[in-house]
Amino acid sequence: AIIPPLVEASAFKPCRKDMDDVEEKPKDTIKFTAEKLSVDEILQLVISPPCGAVSLFVGNTRNNFERKKVISLEYEAYLPMAENEVRKICSDIRQKCPVTHIAVFHRLGLVPVSEASIIIAVSSAHRAASLEAVSYAIDNLKAKVPIWKKELPYGRETKNAFGNCFKQSNIRKVI
Amino acid sequence: AIIPPLVEASAFKPCRKDMDDVEEKPKDTIKFTAEKLSVDEILQLVISPPCGAVSLFVGNTRNNFERKKVISLEYEAYLPMAENEVRKICSDIRQKCPVTHIAVFHRLGLVPVSEASIIIAVSSAHRAASLEAVSYAIDNLKAKVPIWKKELPYGRETKNAFGNCFKQSNIRKVI
Repeated sequence: AIIPPLVEASAFKPCRKDMDDVEEKPKDTIKFTAEKLSVDEILQLVISPPCGAVSLFVGNTRNNFERKKVISLEYEAYLPMAENEVRKICSDIRQKCPVTHIAVFHRLGLVPVSEASIIIAVSSAHRAASLEAVSYAIDNLKAKVPIWKKELPYGRETKNAFGNCFKQSNIRKVI
Repeated sequence: AIIPPLVEASAFKPCRKDMDDVEEKPKDTIKFTAEKLSVDEILQLVISPPCGAVSLFVGNTRNNFERKKVISLEYEAYLPMAENEVRKICSDIRQKCPVTHIAVFHRLGLVPVSEASIIIAVSSAHRAASLEAVSYAIDNLKAKVPIWKKELPYGRETKNAFGNCFKQSNIRKVI
């Protein structure tokens, strides 16, 4: 049997029109990484010629938690589920707002004070959609995605929502 | 059953005043410039150790306006008044939301498609304040600040709110 090749439409060169005039396929870019996040790189992923607006949210490690000093946060995620939940949030956003591209990047491991653990970027033709989408994304990400953080050096022991016990640690669900 | 005690601050070193804990003076950075805007530079201006959130809005030149193709936008501002109006908006934001730093950068002159004419960045301890502030800032900036844009190559003639006529041009108030 002849199996047709799986080739994305975007792999073809647009010949008939200017590059600018081709409607871009909306894309969701979701990444969990141990590397430092770059706001500029993430912005570039969502920029699109017909989009006049990009809204972004950057979540940084704060130097305090419950009045205690924090040096860095350590993040871990239950990856397959976390990616699925972020994908669902992207899909919900597309039901609600006319957005073009969405990028959600989450850093894992140690994140020092003033560095970003999460960056969300959303582009849209006009500003209301991307502003609403970013707000929705961060609220839902914090409520639904299985990511835990541990404040260092401050410590405490907590069971997570999935019943695992992070002994001698202070991992807690990101809220 | 043994109910585990709530872990209290007494278990940990209390937070002491040191460099990190010195409250940063909130600052507003307002800049009109002919240079290309860098989201990363503007983000750095508002990051602060006690702030867990930075929200940003990036306004880019779109490739179309009223169904006509646009190559770039040309911006001009009535500078002393524009700066004053942006300062007032920053002050209004501080009345409404507990934000830390605010940066508003506007590019003037030619801004090609997909490049930023405006970047607004606001930091706050928690996310709601910076999200609300950015939304308020861009809405009010577009409504109140004397900045005009002209679509190129598409052209039309418009009087601005201050009675000047930009002849053979298509300058219009940013809305």
